Formats: sequence, structure tokens, C-alpha cells
Amino acid sequence: MELLLQVLFTMTVIFIMARLGSTIFSRFGLPGLIGEILMGIVIANIAGGDFMRDVLMIDFNSEGFKSEVYTVIYMLAELGVIFLLFSVGLETKVKDLLESGKAAFLCALLGVILPFVAGLALVLAVGDYDMNAAMFMGAAMVATSVGITARIIKDMRLMDVKESRIIIAAAVIDDVLGMIVLAIVQGMATSEGGIDIMDLVIIILKAVLFVVIAIGAAKYLVPKIYTFFDNRKRAARAAGKIPYTYNKLIIAIIVCLGMACLAEFIGLAAIIGAFLAGMLFADHAWEWELEHKVEAITSFMISFFFVNVGLMVDISSLTDVSVIILVVIVILLAMLTKFVGCGFGAKLGDKSIDKSSFSIIGVGMMPRGEVGIIIASIGLNAGVMSGDLYTVVVMMSVLTTIIAPPILSLLFKKKYTEQYEIVPEDRI
Amino acid sequence: MELLLQVLFTMTVIFIMARLGSTIFSRFGLPGLIGEILMGIVIANIAGGDFMRDVLMIDFNSEGFKSEVYTVIYMLAELGVIFLLFSVGLETKVKDLLESGKAAFLCALLGVILPFVAGLALVLAVGDYDMNAAMFMGAAMVATSVGITARIIKDMRLMDVKESRIIIAAAVIDDVLGMIVLAIVQGMATSEGGIDIMDLVIIILKAVLFVVIAIGAAKYLVPKIYTFFDNRKRAARAAGKIPYTYNKLIIAIIVCLGMACLAEFIGLAAIIGAFLAGMLFADHAWEWELEHKVEAITSFMISFFFVNVGLMVDISSLTDVSVIILVVIVILLAMLTKFVGCGFGAKLGDKSIDKSSFSIIGVGMMPRGEVGIIIASIGLNAGVMSGDLYTVVVMMSVLTTIIAPPILSLLFKKKYTEQYEIVPEDRI
Repeated sequence: MELLLQVLFTMTVIFIMARLGSTIFSRFGLPGLIGEILMGIVIANIAGGDFMRDVLMIDFNSEGFKSEVYTVIYMLAELGVIFLLFSVGLETKVKDLLESGKAAFLCALLGVILPFVAGLALVLAVGDYDMNAAMFMGAAMVATSVGITARIIKDMRLMDVKESRIIIAAAVIDDVLGMIVLAIVQGMATSEGGIDIMDLVIIILKAVLFVVIAIGAAKYLVPKIYTFFDNRKRAARAAGKIPYTYNKLIIAIIVCLGMACLAEFIGLAAIIGAFLAGMLFADHAWEWELEHKVEAITSFMISFFFVNVGLMVDISSLTDVSVIILVVIVILLAMLTKFVGCGFGAKLGDKSIDKSSFSIIGVGMMPRGEVGIIIASIGLNAGVMSGDLYTVVVMMSVLTTIIAPPILSLLFKKKYTEQYEIVPEDRI
Repeated sequence: MELLLQVLFTMTVIFIMARLGSTIFSRFGLPGLIGEILMGIVIANIAGGDFMRDVLMIDFNSEGFKSEVYTVIYMLAELGVIFLLFSVGLETKVKDLLESGKAAFLCALLGVILPFVAGLALVLAVGDYDMNAAMFMGAAMVATSVGITARIIKDMRLMDVKESRIIIAAAVIDDVLGMIVLAIVQGMATSEGGIDIMDLVIIILKAVLFVVIAIGAAKYLVPKIYTFFDNRKRAARAAGKIPYTYNKLIIAIIVCLGMACLAEFIGLAAIIGAFLAGMLFADHAWEWELEHKVEAITSFMISFFFVNVGLMVDISSLTDVSVIILVVIVILLAMLTKFVGCGFGAKLGDKSIDKSSFSIIGVGMMPRGEVGIIIASIGLNAGVMSGDLYTVVVMMSVLTTIIAPPILSLLFKKKYTEQYEIVPEDRI
């Protein structure tokens, strides 16, 4: 019972602080998750970490020692991010993905290649880190946060303008590409004895196969399964019987857990499996009320993830001038490469994109949000990324996410003069 | 990452098996949770427990050693039952509770006293156990499962008949009384150096105060808070501003975790705090869609609780003839005391209760379901109840829950000849 009391106490404190941070930030129109991360940094540094260690009983260090309480919090955090990516998958319809225009596709593609190359090259140029760390940095710079992007557009009620459509479609494709990049990078980092061509091919094959099979299943298999059960239901009704109703949420959770487990098992990240699992249900997510239900589960656990992100930030490394310079350069590169890559990609695909649309799309794709951090924490936990690089990624994600929304909002306002209001709302 | 993979694997296996058990049972019109508990017993005994230990990495023994994986599963189970009791609380309106008729109150009261005294007396009469164990057995025999009872009535679409109303109201009062009994019993068992009158008074005071303060808050404080925010919202709207919308689910979760933690801290069970927390939100649970959302969170975690209940059942103790005899006597007593206590209590309060209504109410209050098991597992974890008594309670809960529904259904059919159909549905 001791453990239960301690876990409940730690959970309550973290949850309240996270929500406080989230509420304060969303009242100022900023993404709540930034507030949650900052609260994590605060908790980790009250009384030099003593509060975290002695009161909350959260302890972890480089030797891998973890307190029992932290093990539970950490697992809730991991489950939270698995359900978060699952719900992003639920919003990603394969049909829309495959049909989305050339502009969105090129926008996403260039918006992935440029930041990846820039991140990789920068870390290699610094010289203190190896190839694996550089690749993780590249991968962490890739992912646009579809949640944050969509959230801003939704708050501004501009879902139907051209730029918004391109941004949303591109952010989704970007997510899929980002997952593939992560799968490749992670597979390469965990393959022993360095990287040779054969390893690389196997890893890319595994990652691409997993994604392609899942997308294929979503497109061809899932509709057949649905039709089969639909027909059975009709037949039962026609025979005067009441058909058995399966609990869709339970089935969705099983598929989510199973595919997360499978992804982890074959050497990919659990979140990739969860994201693809969500895509399998995307066509019926609304009808079966899955989005609301999964969102409820996520909202219980995701705060532990963002606070945990903050807990792992080593503030002391920010006193090092070279790290601060690196943070500034990474942030500038992160914004510039997305701006140019996405804007130019969109223009390549759609000649009607003018300067103002270029800017809106470029800025709209800037926020990195949670996905970059998730990738960096995978790298940190696998021992591939150092603590200071992790801190750099967290700072980059936090700051791009803080900087982009106000600019995007200004650009939208300039272009679309219709009256709209930003509704502050505390959702996740 | 090792741990994450193992936890995901164990979770997936347990979840799939639990749902399989639940689906099979609910297709036969029986409560799904019985199937989940039986699956737990199966998992614990495949290859003499080797499957549980070596494949699922679940390990626990009397010396308190627990594997890291089991710690996580156990905490998910505990959180699951906390949210389950929270959602029972969400369905318990204080107003209905305080206004519910004399018949329901006397039905609940006698239905609590008789089983408690019978359980206590029986265990003391056996002679192998101490006063604390006897009290836990008494407490475990008290609680009618409001979920199972309501579920049957709902499935039969007989919510509006007199017997159903009395049963539902009595089951709710029964829950509150059961919680008070548990609080007292648990407080007494954990107070060191045996029980003296002073301890007893303090414990009863703590338990009654906690419950009374919570009910008082639900009745007087919560409506005021609600009115305050409602007025603020109106004022903001009148001033032409868009009012800030708080996320009700998040607030509910914070109150639930906080009160569970507080209950545990002052020596009561966490579930008591969760139940009372639910009651605080009962008046607005529907409006704020809390029930559906909390149900989603519960349905993700509660299976781990029921499977865990099964994991802890020691089948080998059932080869002991004296234990089997004890199981049979306890089951008979459990059914008889509820039948007589509840039926007679209802008749005392409402003279119009005839023989058939007496039977329906008596049988309707029989199923013990999860609450008795929860109480027994608290006793087991606190080291107060022995493994064989725990097994007896689980068998009693499982069997009363299997036996009562078909009888209740027959009695209802006999009295209410209107056509109705039982809709098999797999809810939680």
C-alpha cells in the first residue's frame, strides 16, 4: 500500500502542476504542452532536484537506476505518447493521404529532406558527436507537429482556405515520412557493429515494409473486414436476431497495443506502430466515437509525458556557451529549412502559390512540438543521443512552437481580413 | 527500452485474454468481468505458473518481491479500479440518495448488517482466523455490485418498475454504507497494537467525517462553485468577451486522484476517495460528458484489475476439503442474508411489497461482483486476510454474480409478462 500512496501522491502533484502550466499557456493563446514541459523543468530543479527525488520519489540516473515510482510514471508517460500518436493516426485517413495534391506532397518531402540534412550536417560539423547522434538530430528536426498546426488553424476557423488544406495534408504526409525516417535512424543506431550497406538495406526494408503493409491493410483489408461484419449484422437482423455488438474502443486498444508491441519488437519505435494502428481505424473513428474516447485516455496520461520531457532537461548544460550557441543555430536552421523547404515545395507543386501563401505555408509547418521531442527521448533512452543534444532538441521544439503560432496568426490575419476570433480552449 | 517492450507485450497478452473471456461470457448473457477473472486464473495456472512468470514476467510472492513488469501492471489495475469507483460515484446523485425512499434505505441497511454479521460470525466460528480477518470477510460480504444489478435491469428494459427503483436506490445506499464499513474495518486493521475503544472511535470518526464532508460538499459547496463560474461566464459574455472554457475531464481527474490520495493518506482506501469524488460531479456528469470519458479511461485499465484478481487466486487451496466446505457455506450465507435482509428491509419500509416483489428485490441485491473482491484484495495486500480466505471471497463474488442474474431474469419475466429482449452487449 505504501507504493500506491506514493504513486498517487506523485501523480497528483505532477498532474496538477502540468495542468497549471497548460492552463496558463493556453490562456495566452500558446500551446498548453509547452507549459507542461516548462513545469517539468521547474519540478526537476526545485531545491536543486531534491523536491523531485525526496518528495516525489522520482529518481533516475545514467547508470539506469530508477525508483519504483519513476518506473510507473515513466510507463504512464510512454503509454500516453502511444495513445497520442494513435489519436493522430485516427485523424489520418489513408484516402486523403494518397489523394492529397502534388503541392502538399512536395511541401512535405522538401520539408523533411532539408531539415534532416541540415541537422545531420550541423551536428557532424560540430565534431563532438558521432554519426548516430547526428542522424537522430536530423530526424528530430524533421517532424512538424500536426496537432499544433491543426490546432492553430482550427482556432482561427480557417480550415477551408487553400494554405490550410496544403498545410494539413503536408503535415500528415510529413508525419508518415518522419516515422519512416525515425524507423530507419533507430534501426541503424541499434544495429550493432556500426552501419554497413546490408544493415541499412534491411532496416529501410523493415521500416518501409511495416509502413506499406499497414497502409495497404488500411486501404484494402480494413474495408473488407468492415463489410464482412456489416453483412453479418444485416443477416442476423434479417433472421430476426439481435446482432452482437462488439465494443469498438476495446478492439482499437488491442490493435494499438499489439502494433506498438510489434513495432518495438522488430526494432522500430512503439509510437510508429500506434500511429499506423490509428490509421487503420481512421475511416470509422468518427462513427464509432473513437476520437473522443481515445482523447480521454490520452488526456489522462499525456501530461506525464510532457512533464517527463521537462524532468530530463539538464539546465546546467545551458550555462555552457557552446551549447547555447548550438541551440540558437539549431533553432534558426529548424525554422529556415522548414520555411524554405515547405514553401518552395508547395510552389513547385502548385504554381498559383504567391508570396503570401509561401510565407503562411512555410511558417505553418515550423512548429515541431511533441514529435521532435519524442524522437530525441528515444535517442536519449537508447544511449545514442547525449544529454546536451537532447536539451538542444527540447529547446528547439519548445521555441519553434512558441515562435511560429503568433507569426502564423499575423500572416493569416493580413491575408484573410474577415473577422474571426481566437477561442482560447483547454483541450488536451 | 527492454522494459517498454516487455510491458507492452504483457499488457497486450493480458488485454486480449481478458477481452476474450469477457466477450465469451457476455455472449451468454453473463457479466463479462467474471470471464476476465477466470482468464486471470487460467493465466496464473498455465504450465503451473511458468507462463505467468517466464513469458509475462509477472512475479509476486509473500515476501513482497515483485517484478518491474508486475509493478506496472499492478498500478494500472489499481488505477483502473480507482476510475471504476469514480464512475460509480458519477452515477450516484446526492439528491437521489438523500431523497430515496424509506424502503430503499431499510433494504440497504438490513442488507448490509445481516451479511456483515454473518461473515464475521462464520469466520470467527471456524476458529483459524483472527478478528481482523473476520471483519474483512464481513465487509467483503456487504457490497452489492451496483454495476451488475443496474446492468441486468437496463438490459431487460425494466428501469421504471417499482422493484427496479428500490433495487437501484438501495444498491447506491448500500455502496455508501459498504464504503463506510470498509473504512472502519481497514482503519481498525491497520491501527497497531490491536483495537481499543479509543482507536475505534477515532477510526469511525475519520471514516464518517470523510464521507459526511464529501456528501456535504456535494450538496452545498459544489452547486455554489458551479453557480460562481456560471455567473462569471455570463458576465464575460455580457462584456463581449469569450469566456475561458475549462476542461472538465481534467478537473474531474485531478479531484479523483487527489481524493483517492487523501483517503489513502488518512488510512482509508483510495477507492473510497474516488467514489466520493465521483459523487461531487454526479449532477453535471451527463452535461459535461464525464461518464463516457471516464468510462473510456476505465475500460482501458479495468481489465488489468479483474485479471489480476484471478492471478492471485490460489487454486491449490481449493483441493482442501475444509476450504471447499467454507466456500459453499459462505456462498449460501451470502445469498440468504442479502435475500432476507433486503427483502425484509424493503417490506418494512413499504407495506405494498408482496411476495413476488420481496423475491425480486432479495435476488436483485445478491450479486457481489467487483466490490467484495476489491475489499478482499485490500485485506490480502495489507496482510490481514490469508490467501485461502481471499480465494473464498473471490469464489463467493464470482458465483453469486453468476447465479443471481438468471434467477432475477426469471422472476422479472414471471411478474412482468410484457415482451422484452435481452440485448447482449459488451460494454465495459
